[in-house]
Amino acid sequence: MSSSYKGQTLKRVLVTGGLGYIGSHVVVSLLLTGRYLPIVIDNCHNAYPEALKRCAEIARDEMGPDAPQPELHQIDLRNPEDIEAVFAKYDSQEGGIWAVVHLAALKAVGESGEIPLTYYKVNVGGSISLLESMEKHNVKNFVFSSSATVYGTPKIIPIPESSPVQPESSYGRTKGMVEAIMHDACLAEVTRLGEGALRAVSVRYFNPAGAHPSGKLGEEPMGRPGNLLPLLAQMASGRVKSDLKVFGNDYPTPDGTCVRDYLHVMDLAEGHVLALDALDKSKSEPGIFAPVDPKKDGYFRAFNLGKGKGMSVLNMIDAMHKASGFDYKYEIVGRRLGDVPELTADPTLAEKELGFVAKRNLEEMCTDLWRFQTANPNGYRS
Amino acid sequence: MSSSYKGQTLKRVLVTGGLGYIGSHVVVSLLLTGRYLPIVIDNCHNAYPEALKRCAEIARDEMGPDAPQPELHQIDLRNPEDIEAVFAKYDSQEGGIWAVVHLAALKAVGESGEIPLTYYKVNVGGSISLLESMEKHNVKNFVFSSSATVYGTPKIIPIPESSPVQPESSYGRTKGMVEAIMHDACLAEVTRLGEGALRAVSVRYFNPAGAHPSGKLGEEPMGRPGNLLPLLAQMASGRVKSDLKVFGNDYPTPDGTCVRDYLHVMDLAEGHVLALDALDKSKSEPGIFAPVDPKKDGYFRAFNLGKGKGMSVLNMIDAMHKASGFDYKYEIVGRRLGDVPELTADPTLAEKELGFVAKRNLEEMCTDLWRFQTANPNGYRS
Repeated sequence: MSSSYKGQTLKRVLVTGGLGYIGSHVVVSLLLTGRYLPIVIDNCHNAYPEALKRCAEIARDEMGPDAPQPELHQIDLRNPEDIEAVFAKYDSQEGGIWAVVHLAALKAVGESGEIPLTYYKVNVGGSISLLESMEKHNVKNFVFSSSATVYGTPKIIPIPESSPVQPESSYGRTKGMVEAIMHDACLAEVTRLGEGALRAVSVRYFNPAGAHPSGKLGEEPMGRPGNLLPLLAQMASGRVKSDLKVFGNDYPTPDGTCVRDYLHVMDLAEGHVLALDALDKSKSEPGIFAPVDPKKDGYFRAFNLGKGKGMSVLNMIDAMHKASGFDYKYEIVGRRLGDVPELTADPTLAEKELGFVAKRNLEEMCTDLWRFQTANPNGYRS
Repeated sequence: MSSSYKGQTLKRVLVTGGLGYIGSHVVVSLLLTGRYLPIVIDNCHNAYPEALKRCAEIARDEMGPDAPQPELHQIDLRNPEDIEAVFAKYDSQEGGIWAVVHLAALKAVGESGEIPLTYYKVNVGGSISLLESMEKHNVKNFVFSSSATVYGTPKIIPIPESSPVQPESSYGRTKGMVEAIMHDACLAEVTRLGEGALRAVSVRYFNPAGAHPSGKLGEEPMGRPGNLLPLLAQMASGRVKSDLKVFGNDYPTPDGTCVRDYLHVMDLAEGHVLALDALDKSKSEPGIFAPVDPKKDGYFRAFNLGKGKGMSVLNMIDAMHKASGFDYKYEIVGRRLGDVPELTADPTLAEKELGFVAKRNLEEMCTDLWRFQTANPNGYRS
């Protein structure tokens, strides 16, 4: 199997959870660079292999028939021997696996409080097994899908990366724990291997929304959407008949509803490519590791990926009304337990060090989402 | 196999790591109650099956020939299917497994920084699998072996349980993570099962030392002892030829050397029995869960197990000199990275709620240790 494009050797990037909402957009972004070849791991728990076909289709549309083709391994991170087999397979191929982008995880905050052991097993246990295989197979670049939930209820808004990690849900704790584990793994490797040690970036997501502009790739939650934007899209298309509830309009925010930092999923996906590029560059110049003392902290950094701009629930309903034309009726109900008034990123560190800017605007986000919804009224099962 | 003693049905208690230093003393303490039957799990990574024979011997010496006999399953917590098989085995026997005392763990702070992934896999991954099996087999009482290291460098000495959990080593982080995971598991079960939910106690050890007074059971580290007291004992017996280094004598303590809270291992072991008794009692009266709101926090408590009295390195050398007659030569060298001047427990909560008092004194601790050392000059391999 070829691992080059236009004469350039591609670097293999293992993307766990690569069929998911964010994962599939990361896969497309990697393909479109013409420099990275995504190898996808997914257990299809909340995702469809169809997503990968769409990724390949977008790549061919934009790059021509010799576009790189992603590969899929349908395995579960709870089976360490299956992870091992994937790494072993590429050991024999030139370049092996160059990096891992680790997105596979259970992600529903509410559910995490109901079945915490499953969340810890999958999110924490799976990450430990993955890092063990990386160590064994000498894979030294790691990008981890973390979350703004690690900040819990932060004291400073917009939130800088220096805010303490003190998550308030089981889901958030799984993310905080994996950050601590990978940080320890990075430090241990510096002691043993010096500059050849594991290098890792944790990217802390704010609220990704929208879809690839082609209309071919988007969010496809199983069951009733848990997040606001997919719910609004499915309501507008008639796929979901639902009451729209707004939880609280008496928060200390401009219109009284909760404010979140929504960023376009393609911006978020490209943030992962920037993180990989930064890891690559860091071998020849201090780059993102200039501010840290590797002997004390290992090659480990964490970055917010957000827009740095807050949008309220009512802002989002209004924007989706403009994109879809649907006349949303909503009911204001009481505040929801655990919701904080405002969560927006301080995005300056990621801009300065990764060159990351979430440049797509709210209108684009809603238009792209609506395009995906109308082109795929029943998602990937259409 | 009988599970009664003098007509009383015994409650089966699964003791993970039951062949280890603390584990074997817990097993003896459980046997001597005549109420609990220890079922031991151990992978013999740093322990010997001989320890269990000694436990049974002590029980027969003290209780007669019909003393309860512990059972051993030599398995590794990294294999969830092996854990499952043990639980399944007792499902078919009356009473099944009533409680789990979970001590199995890797425990060397220094090593944890060198091979953190192995520590997370064994200590955190193993605990998740164990808790999953408990949930599946309806085992609702849990005592977890935690550590004073979860406090990191505490602001208040003596340390109350309300000190923040902010460990400073990979080992300490594994303990802090398991506490968080079990806490979440307790809360989730309250929501689902109400009063029938998992009840858990985390016991945070200070510095256990000494041995069972029979001279049959003690600490048997593989290789050169990493802890002060076993090293002093092995030096006195001639088993180890070693320089004795005291790391720093310029700390702000009475004699300038580090102060720790040493407690007799039999006091510590009996603390586990008190924790099980408290869990048992809590079914009929609020007991240790009176101060918590189960709907908010689950049935979860953490207690320090310490003496509440600090002893310096030089105090301990002097006490072991008195017990063994050995004339220790030591050299004062520089401070060791990561050592804090003083770590002593505030033991009032455990005394008030569990009735726990570390009553054995320093002399007893050293005499018992020396008795074990002279009776077993080469440990369990004698």
